[in-house]
Amino acid sequence: MKKNLLIIHGGGPTAVLNASLYGALKEAGKYPQIGRIYGAKNGTGGVLREKFISLEEVPDDKLQLLLQTPGSAIGTSRDELGEKEYERMAEVLIKWEIGYVLFNGGNGTMDTCGKLHKTCRNKGMDIAVMGIPKTMDNDISVTDHSPGFGSAARFIAQSTRELCADVRGLPIHVVVMEASGRNAGWITAAAALASDDGGPGPDLIYLPEIPFDEDQYIEDVKKLLTRKKGIVIVVSEGLKDQEGNPVVEPIFKTGRATYFGDVSSYLAGLVIKRLGYKARGEKPGLLGRASILLQSSVDREEAELAGELACRAVLQKESGKMVAFRRLSTSPYRIEPFLVDIEEVMLVEKTMPKAFINEEGNGVTESFKEWCRPLLGGKLTQMTHFNQE
Amino acid sequence: MKKNLLIIHGGGPTAVLNASLYGALKEAGKYPQIGRIYGAKNGTGGVLREKFISLEEVPDDKLQLLLQTPGSAIGTSRDELGEKEYERMAEVLIKWEIGYVLFNGGNGTMDTCGKLHKTCRNKGMDIAVMGIPKTMDNDISVTDHSPGFGSAARFIAQSTRELCADVRGLPIHVVVMEASGRNAGWITAAAALASDDGGPGPDLIYLPEIPFDEDQYIEDVKKLLTRKKGIVIVVSEGLKDQEGNPVVEPIFKTGRATYFGDVSSYLAGLVIKRLGYKARGEKPGLLGRASILLQSSVDREEAELAGELACRAVLQKESGKMVAFRRLSTSPYRIEPFLVDIEEVMLVEKTMPKAFINEEGNGVTESFKEWCRPLLGGKLTQMTHFNQE
Repeated sequence: MKKNLLIIHGGGPTAVLNASLYGALKEAGKYPQIGRIYGAKNGTGGVLREKFISLEEVPDDKLQLLLQTPGSAIGTSRDELGEKEYERMAEVLIKWEIGYVLFNGGNGTMDTCGKLHKTCRNKGMDIAVMGIPKTMDNDISVTDHSPGFGSAARFIAQSTRELCADVRGLPIHVVVMEASGRNAGWITAAAALASDDGGPGPDLIYLPEIPFDEDQYIEDVKKLLTRKKGIVIVVSEGLKDQEGNPVVEPIFKTGRATYFGDVSSYLAGLVIKRLGYKARGEKPGLLGRASILLQSSVDREEAELAGELACRAVLQKESGKMVAFRRLSTSPYRIEPFLVDIEEVMLVEKTMPKAFINEEGNGVTESFKEWCRPLLGGKLTQMTHFNQE
Repeated sequence: MKKNLLIIHGGGPTAVLNASLYGALKEAGKYPQIGRIYGAKNGTGGVLREKFISLEEVPDDKLQLLLQTPGSAIGTSRDELGEKEYERMAEVLIKWEIGYVLFNGGNGTMDTCGKLHKTCRNKGMDIAVMGIPKTMDNDISVTDHSPGFGSAARFIAQSTRELCADVRGLPIHVVVMEASGRNAGWITAAAALASDDGGPGPDLIYLPEIPFDEDQYIEDVKKLLTRKKGIVIVVSEGLKDQEGNPVVEPIFKTGRATYFGDVSSYLAGLVIKRLGYKARGEKPGLLGRASILLQSSVDREEAELAGELACRAVLQKESGKMVAFRRLSTSPYRIEPFLVDIEEVMLVEKTMPKAFINEEGNGVTESFKEWCRPLLGGKLTQMTHFNQE
């Protein structure tokens, strides 16, 4: 008997979220046992309200565009769900004859995925529920890395290189760039790859894993300014002080989502006030997950693969699991996909290990760079200058 | 008798400042009457201190990289110069046997260029001084547009499209993106081109030419939120109120340079406080002039041409002028370069004409889009979505 397939997106998008959707849709098209293919309109809320988008007859040229479309082409949500909602979702799945469910999202979404799987299993329903990892922040555990991160890493590395090339020719100037990552510094850390192949790179990197000390920060900048005039600093949006309080107070809080004040402006302001030098803060923000030109080809291919494998897995009646990647080798770069029990990743947040952060707590180690480099999907643009300091 | 050529960069860089340098250097290499080719290290300050970079023997592969290097490859400055400094510069030019001087910069630099030309002429010196227009803000007068602007326009248009694609799939969300341009809204306005060819575009655009009214802004947003859930607003960093005061107080001032507070964060905060909706501010800042992947090919070619023509002009003993572009036709796009008396552009700031701004003062007209479109150097990336509102 034919069963329908449902794809649900959760949480914030990445530059390759739609590439996973593409992979899943292409794969789903191969199986005669799949009837209709639905996308939940705007995440789990769409399931609860029975708002579905038909995806089985999307023309191929439109499907291809998913690979270069940021955001979530079927919408997403960040809803808090209780027992009642899981019961309701199970009802909807039965009503719509859905046999296969794919959840594409981060920690929070994997939590939802695991709970829906459990609800369905407890009811003895014949439904397979599978997770596709997605996070720009790279904070999903077990997997070596997650689709979405490589592109965010490429964005920050190339942007930092460009910023450094710009600042290098200016009169004394301190630029503080803010990178995404509330508790995990993976993206911020990737800025270090700007200096690959002799490119200009950042001078200081501050990660949320290390308690931020304003005095030490000012000392770090002051010391650098004795020998350099253009300083580029990359900081995580989620920097916290010794007591664990955000360096800048969040300006807005709702449920699991926190809206931070601009750490970059605040830290630029500190340089102005305490050192008297010109400084400015930059915050590309959402651009860091939406840039298509800075999509990593490796990331895009892996995102597509993750979607494809999740689809294949539900067809094989696997349920309550997430697609993950194991790294077999870094040079040459080789990974192996596997399935992990969803229980192992639900709401677990993976932060940077100590071995990836330098002793001073203001930069990364070579081992981090080695680990991160292949995920960028190729070299950054090459630059030159004649203005040696 | 051979004379040496000197190239001086002034003010903030653009994505194609080094492309003009490339054009000038390539052209200069063709003339046997040119002896040495110098770059002033870090702008006029380098001339005063006799810090020159030899550029006549740069290998071709390194020269080529100038086309994809943001910033100023020979450095730049934003120094205040008095009569004494112009006298000193004239002395240095004589001492170093310089017969040709090219200034690459914006309004301020063209002022310097004109004053140096005058100083040399008053002294009866045999020196030709020529300006190459450069400004991301497009605020140099007389010329149809200036090298640097097309790339900044492409950056903001593509980034806005990406941001809109991202926000389109989210739960209610207001994003305010800040664009460069203190007094001239050209870059901010170019965000409107995001919606070309059916792409997702910004909902509101606020330019520095129009006095900003916070109540009207909140009304505009409120009205939109009755029919849309993802709102993207693009604002100029230099928004001013009815009295001409910056919407956000500048955080740092020095000479001609003003460091603004973040208008985007402030306006996002207003939405949160007054409407209770989620909102965030983004500020790509310097990335908007440093992105190489979003360089406009038209801009790059014109920048190169401007450098080339300025060099050719000084060889023909033209002096006290700037290379400018006249638009012959918009469709097909055709321009004609000409030389303008530097007096006409010195410190004159060109802002957006009324005909390019919509009646409500929160967007642009079709005539602006038609004028701006060819400068982007080709279409933006195409996108798709299945989540019609």
